[in-house]
Amino acid sequence: MEDKTLRIDEATIVFSEKPELTEPVLIEGLPGVGNVGKLAAEHLIDEIGATKFADIYSTDFPPQVFVRDDGTIKLARNELYYWKGPVDLVILTGDYQGLSTRGQYVLVQSILQLVQEYGTRRIYTLGGYGVGVEVDEPTVTGAATHPELIEELEEYGIVFKDKGGGGIVGASGLLLGIGTMMDMEGVCLMGETSGYMVDPGSARAVLEILASILDVDIGYAKLEEKAEEISKIAQRIKQLEQSGGADEEAGDLHYIG
Amino acid sequence: MEDKTLRIDEATIVFSEKPELTEPVLIEGLPGVGNVGKLAAEHLIDEIGATKFADIYSTDFPPQVFVRDDGTIKLARNELYYWKGPVDLVILTGDYQGLSTRGQYVLVQSILQLVQEYGTRRIYTLGGYGVGVEVDEPTVTGAATHPELIEELEEYGIVFKDKGGGGIVGASGLLLGIGTMMDMEGVCLMGETSGYMVDPGSARAVLEILASILDVDIGYAKLEEKAEEISKIAQRIKQLEQSGGADEEAGDLHYIG
Amino acid sequence: MEDKTLRIDEATIVFSEKPELTEPVLIEGLPGVGNVGKLAAEHLIDEIGATKFADIYSTDFPPQVFVRDDGTIKLARNELYYWKGPVDLVILTGDYQGLSTRGQYVLVQSILQLVQEYGTRRIYTLGGYGVGVEVDEPTVTGAATHPELIEELEEYGIVFKDKGGGGIVGASGLLLGIGTMMDMEGVCLMGETSGYMVDPGSARAVLEILASILDVDIGYAKLEEKAEEISKIAQRIKQLEQSGGADEEAGDLHYIG
Amino acid sequence: MEDKTLRIDEATIVFSEKPELTEPVLIEGLPGVGNVGKLAAEHLIDEIGATKFADIYSTDFPPQVFVRDDGTIKLARNELYYWKGPVDLVILTGDYQGLSTRGQYVLVQSILQLVQEYGTRRIYTLGGYGVGVEVDEPTVTGAATHPELIEELEEYGIVFKDKGGGGIVGASGLLLGIGTMMDMEGVCLMGETSGYMVDPGSARAVLEILASILDVDIGYAKLEEKAEEISKIAQRIKQLEQSGGADEEAGDLHYIG
Repeated sequence: MEDKTLRIDEATIVFSEKPELTEPVLIEGLPGVGNVGKLAAEHLIDEIGATKFADIYSTDFPPQVFVRDDGTIKLARNELYYWKGPVDLVILTGDYQGLSTRGQYVLVQSILQLVQEYGTRRIYTLGGYGVGVEVDEPTVTGAATHPELIEELEEYGIVFKDKGGGGIVGASGLLLGIGTMMDMEGVCLMGETSGYMVDPGSARAVLEILASILDVDIGYAKLEEKAEEISKIAQRIKQLEQSGGADEEAGDLHYIG
Repeated sequence: MEDKTLRIDEATIVFSEKPELTEPVLIEGLPGVGNVGKLAAEHLIDEIGATKFADIYSTDFPPQVFVRDDGTIKLARNELYYWKGPVDLVILTGDYQGLSTRGQYVLVQSILQLVQEYGTRRIYTLGGYGVGVEVDEPTVTGAATHPELIEELEEYGIVFKDKGGGGIVGASGLLLGIGTMMDMEGVCLMGETSGYMVDPGSARAVLEILASILDVDIGYAKLEEKAEEISKIAQRIKQLEQSGGADEEAGDLHYIG
Repeated sequence: MEDKTLRIDEATIVFSEKPELTEPVLIEGLPGVGNVGKLAAEHLIDEIGATKFADIYSTDFPPQVFVRDDGTIKLARNELYYWKGPVDLVILTGDYQGLSTRGQYVLVQSILQLVQEYGTRRIYTLGGYGVGVEVDEPTVTGAATHPELIEELEEYGIVFKDKGGGGIVGASGLLLGIGTMMDMEGVCLMGETSGYMVDPGSARAVLEILASILDVDIGYAKLEEKAEEISKIAQRIKQLEQSGGADEEAGDLHYIG
Repeated sequence: MEDKTLRIDEATIVFSEKPELTEPVLIEGLPGVGNVGKLAAEHLIDEIGATKFADIYSTDFPPQVFVRDDGTIKLARNELYYWKGPVDLVILTGDYQGLSTRGQYVLVQSILQLVQEYGTRRIYTLGGYGVGVEVDEPTVTGAATHPELIEELEEYGIVFKDKGGGGIVGASGLLLGIGTMMDMEGVCLMGETSGYMVDPGSARAVLEILASILDVDIGYAKLEEKAEEISKIAQRIKQLEQSGGADEEAGDLHYIG
């Protein structure tokens, strides 16, 4: 199935399937603040039953393999899924973003070129918006490529107010910034999050708005479970910190995702 | 207007217009010490009403978009403006310099190649010269590509004295150093500045000399306003520091530009 | 013997001999945690009397030469050895791994391409698995490219249990991850080690299992000697630390290999 | 004289003259420990009256210009000088070494290719050997490409003893390591030096041996003067440090060269 003479370069896409898609909407959720984007993208993939059709390798991903629970390995990669529905979707997720400035640009441009061939016109990138304090009811802030999109999407409850000259770093920003030059339009949906822990609650807030925009119907039970699990861990960390102890025991829990 | 198959590389120039210009003088003001160069270039653009004709993108700019106050995004870029006058001008400004050593060289060489095609022979690069203490009446220090230029420009009040073997880092230096090899000549005008805050006063000192050299007549009201605003902020920071408090409140003010 | 117009690039292989080999098994032992892999590979080379047939240079190795005891120099490099036996072997070792992310990928891919031409189907990469505490009887943990390999190799005493989502960084991981795409299969054998000192004991544990898999018969006297030497150094460091002194005297001993 | 369409790349050599030379000996002295190599090379150039024939620019040198005392600028570069004598010489010096690992390799290979065209067979690289304490009578340690060279040069008083597995970092090492592959032979001469200050005394020790090998007769008055100047500065720093004061006044003196 895979090319035996394949050489991984700055962005090497290996297809396991070449689906037929009609102007698919591109959705991106890669690791970032609170892991909100990745959690949301992965949950969406599970809930709608999207199918993986390509792996993306890069000399700009960490030079390492991940060891799965069964003892087998997996090379650092990003993954592309598709879903055929009222609106076709292509979903980008993975465990890594490019490590270098140039790598970020090259990876994003390769992905945009791929979806451009499918006719993609609309992009939603998903991420977290760190506010430094715990958030009970996370709002979803947006940033758009075009003013008309803001008008169109404000009715879904996305806040497009002044972020005080902030920036969106990484794939969530670049996909939109470079996508604009390739005649695409899009929005970055950022769930409010403390930024200190993975945040399934913020991922849910983002996903509820996205599902509403895309008019797909999904459940949130798994995100809910994760949120409760994280919440318990957070409480335990607090207790440990208040009792002055056991930083080490708690330390690894921050990154459970 | 823009090429749909555009791929951003180390230095990718996207023209929105191809103006007719006669041996334009190149003026550069990018971020640096006290943001003096950028403030001066932007003020000049506003005052003379220069027109943007090209954006420069680079895989060496930060992989991020900037969110504007209205919620729309802007990809990291540099910008080129032109002005047709007694002497034609091309003005380079932007929010970033290249992040890597190589990127700096490639960007500068691409810009020099562009203006070489327009017949550019003269370059003025604008910057700040950090002295570590507050400066009331900033002098403007110069460094030139050729000894004859020093003679020519000393009468404008530029100080070309010994800087003790110092260096000029980034685009302001490279444009001159590499420009020399392309048969151009030029001067770097450096306004004295503390180096601790953005310094519209120093930008004005630089601009007054540049305007005099170019024989253009511009106002300074907006720079004056900004200088007063910064001055108030500085006083407030001092008060806060003396009262031992509120570093956080003051922290963000350093970079208002 | 060597090409006079040779230019070292990201991965430049210089052959001193082109051996005839039949589907050689690739064995890798480069510097890493506890130097386990390198110690094991070098000991194997010595014991079976493998022959060097190629040097690998790279613009991604440290830009330096190593001064040998006799005052002659040796450029930073990796080395390839071969051994013709019941199963032919190609053994990769050296004093360095690539310094950059991209360099790691390029070097590994060049080596895989080389052994692919020899028909290599099986890879064993050797390394250490840092546990942070002293280990008396090091176990050997494995990670494999395919589930069938795990079944095949568990009988040799390799532990393929859950490593809790860990990763294998560098050539030991990449050779397997990228090798999979080139129709090879393989296992990373990781000897338990404190991670604080070079660990000949852990290297021996790894090598005993590898020798058993390859069905080659080797002695361990030299590794035994080294282990005792290191053990004495470790005791001396402990004594020095307990007496509160002489960190400097002990400092250099950590890296004797 | 210089190419107007020149573009600086990883290693761009610009000739001002193409001298006729017969198998010139290459001598390298670039910045490093105690600036010994650079001081020695520059002193040699002055004393024998060598002529500059080429500048080397690189996207791997710092992106900056140096401001001379007269207010004119000079782009970061290396310089090549020649001298026609009983033995022809090519001398490499400059204010910078390449900033990146790859840059070091590419620059060194470009220089070796240039001198290979002139028929160069012998290289002397000059540097300092930091010992961490003040040295009154610096010895000169050597490292050679071939054992026969050690025999040949030991009679000049160079010490080729065991350096305990040390390395030579940068151009001084790479020129020899890569030169060997291009059929050249050579020696690195390292003057003992504290490593804390520029060391004209160590440079003299290196140069005396080199002059003796090359059979050229040069004076050392200027190095002597510099050594006395540095010695006074060192004494002053000591006094200041003992009086507990004025670190700032002394701080800049460390790097006078």
